[in-house]
Amino acid sequence: MEYIQQNFNVNFSYGVFFSSNLFDPANTCLSSFLESKAEPAFQKKLLVILDGGVVAHHTNLPQQITSYLQTVRGFQLAPEIITISGGESVKNDLPLLFSLVDAIDKYGIDRHSYVIGIGGGSLLDLVGFAAAVSHRGVKHIRIPTTVLSQNDSGVGVKNGVNYKGKKNFLGSFAPPAAVFNDAVFLTTLDTRDWRSGMVEAVKVALIKDAPFFTWMEEKAVTLTAGDMPAMKELIYRCAALHMQHIGGGGDPFESGSSRPLDFGHWSAHKLEQLTNFELRHGEAVSIGIALDSVYSFLLGWIDESAMQRILTVLKNMQLPIWHPLLEMQDGKPSPVIVGLEEFREHLGGQLTISLLRAIGKGEEVHHIDLDLLYKAVTICKNNQ
Amino acid sequence: MEYIQQNFNVNFSYGVFFSSNLFDPANTCLSSFLESKAEPAFQKKLLVILDGGVVAHHTNLPQQITSYLQTVRGFQLAPEIITISGGESVKNDLPLLFSLVDAIDKYGIDRHSYVIGIGGGSLLDLVGFAAAVSHRGVKHIRIPTTVLSQNDSGVGVKNGVNYKGKKNFLGSFAPPAAVFNDAVFLTTLDTRDWRSGMVEAVKVALIKDAPFFTWMEEKAVTLTAGDMPAMKELIYRCAALHMQHIGGGGDPFESGSSRPLDFGHWSAHKLEQLTNFELRHGEAVSIGIALDSVYSFLLGWIDESAMQRILTVLKNMQLPIWHPLLEMQDGKPSPVIVGLEEFREHLGGQLTISLLRAIGKGEEVHHIDLDLLYKAVTICKNNQ
Repeated sequence: MEYIQQNFNVNFSYGVFFSSNLFDPANTCLSSFLESKAEPAFQKKLLVILDGGVVAHHTNLPQQITSYLQTVRGFQLAPEIITISGGESVKNDLPLLFSLVDAIDKYGIDRHSYVIGIGGGSLLDLVGFAAAVSHRGVKHIRIPTTVLSQNDSGVGVKNGVNYKGKKNFLGSFAPPAAVFNDAVFLTTLDTRDWRSGMVEAVKVALIKDAPFFTWMEEKAVTLTAGDMPAMKELIYRCAALHMQHIGGGGDPFESGSSRPLDFGHWSAHKLEQLTNFELRHGEAVSIGIALDSVYSFLLGWIDESAMQRILTVLKNMQLPIWHPLLEMQDGKPSPVIVGLEEFREHLGGQLTISLLRAIGKGEEVHHIDLDLLYKAVTICKNNQ
Repeated sequence: MEYIQQNFNVNFSYGVFFSSNLFDPANTCLSSFLESKAEPAFQKKLLVILDGGVVAHHTNLPQQITSYLQTVRGFQLAPEIITISGGESVKNDLPLLFSLVDAIDKYGIDRHSYVIGIGGGSLLDLVGFAAAVSHRGVKHIRIPTTVLSQNDSGVGVKNGVNYKGKKNFLGSFAPPAAVFNDAVFLTTLDTRDWRSGMVEAVKVALIKDAPFFTWMEEKAVTLTAGDMPAMKELIYRCAALHMQHIGGGGDPFESGSSRPLDFGHWSAHKLEQLTNFELRHGEAVSIGIALDSVYSFLLGWIDESAMQRILTVLKNMQLPIWHPLLEMQDGKPSPVIVGLEEFREHLGGQLTISLLRAIGKGEEVHHIDLDLLYKAVTICKNNQ
């Protein structure tokens, strides 16, 4: 038998920029980036896909974007800025996905051109996937507008849409060409989005960075009340930890089983789905973190004071730490806890759940004791 | 402005195995590969998607596949082998794409499991894309069954489907987990597929490997008549050159403009489309190679004897070197030559066309002289 071995590395590199008022003519952050990518021999194109929820708060934004991007040397802006609604529902809409693919075709966005998504994490997931499958991948720039997308999903490498009720069933790993976090968009977030977006920072601190957790303990009340300098610091530190994990963790495209960043997420995904996304992602993750932290305590991995510190931070952020669907329902198992098997199927292979060995140190297990888990549910309920 | 730079490498590695009678119980090539990937903690799954055109010639194949794969330790075969038609038309069928995604869902193919595609290049392109977008990429194994797919597309890293009449508009770069070339499938190819599959070997030899071209000159007549040992050697050498280019060329996912492997392809894509795929891909590429070789001669890049050697090899392989659509049509420009701009749009950026500096040495240009191109058409016509 003859045999040829193929082996190569592909380098992925992108910057995450932290700025304010990106489309102010005086702000050259985005235009400088683009102009650094211009080529003398031909024009590159730009197509903007914008979150209607953002436009509702920033009504001049489409006009500002147009004025700003029309002056970028070497680039030609598509004649239309596409505005779509934001929120999780855009990920349930395959015709919308194809309408974006059609726009990429119609406006001649080729592999040298850029699709720019501006919005929350759901819109960015959708736009990133449309870009990733068109022409085998056109470049995309992300401008996340929420706390959650600025500190977590928007700076990462995944995209995706839901399919037949399964979250992110269709998607890919496709690093962005660049990410621009604009703090001005945070000023118009509603209270729930402002608060719940902090939870991924709590999560990543708990599994990786004890001093960051301590900092959040100190800041939780003022952060929750709207302290913007503190929020900017939270976003920066969370984004940096997230990016270090992707770039330095050895498995950026998740070919193995280990997914420590999923701490608190197995129950959260199911809670979101069971509540028809009335729970925000961050709220569901807050409940998930509380549950898995208490479970870690019941296993003897963290002590009671550590558990209480975690629950207190979440409560100080005005986030939920329990939900009735976590309990037995009329003598039947909790539909969330039944979802543990679904979570295993989604990841494939062995059940792999991240727990806490200490504040700042995650560790994975491959088995969950259901009796202990129901005890953890009760402790969460009693600590609300 | 604050800034975080992300930078990481992803390693891609896969083997291409050359064997015969893959599903003979005595042949452990495929089963050994799979068993090397087994894990004690859980079962991985296998889903086979099979080309109906292959089954027509190998009627026991579904039964053989089932018997063979059911015995692989650590793996569970899906209860159904999915048979679909082969040929380019499967790439025009989005509902078929989604039916494969549905099967991946239904049979619980997760990111540790494998989708195995068995068929020609079109089927493999479709199956590879369905796998690439499910769960952000499930592993796929390719078993190419034609000369063309065994020496070229099947050993590469691309997949894709056509969309709204645009070839490969939707697709991705997704290296396979492994490729198994089985020579037995070649014995039942029809004459046109056998012959036209050789043209990618002519192409890659012309741009990269003069001794391989000389070898094909010597073997062209016997290859065309059905010499299997020679064909195996042609496939091995062509696959190796193709893989070296991808792995060693510095741009496996084609982020830049340079695409030397597209030599002869700009007109070929258009000819396929304009003839409703009545021309095989390899036949169209043969015409494209002839045209671009003659154009290279008219530019003074290769001498007349080199040009004649190229045309002679193609003619000895009983492949076409001209098509009426290359000429002016009733005083209007050739619809193929008009397609030059479409080709540029597909790649984006500057027009980039590979030509020949010598047999064995490709070189790119960014401008085509249309008068000279029509002269090349006439020379091809007169040399048939």
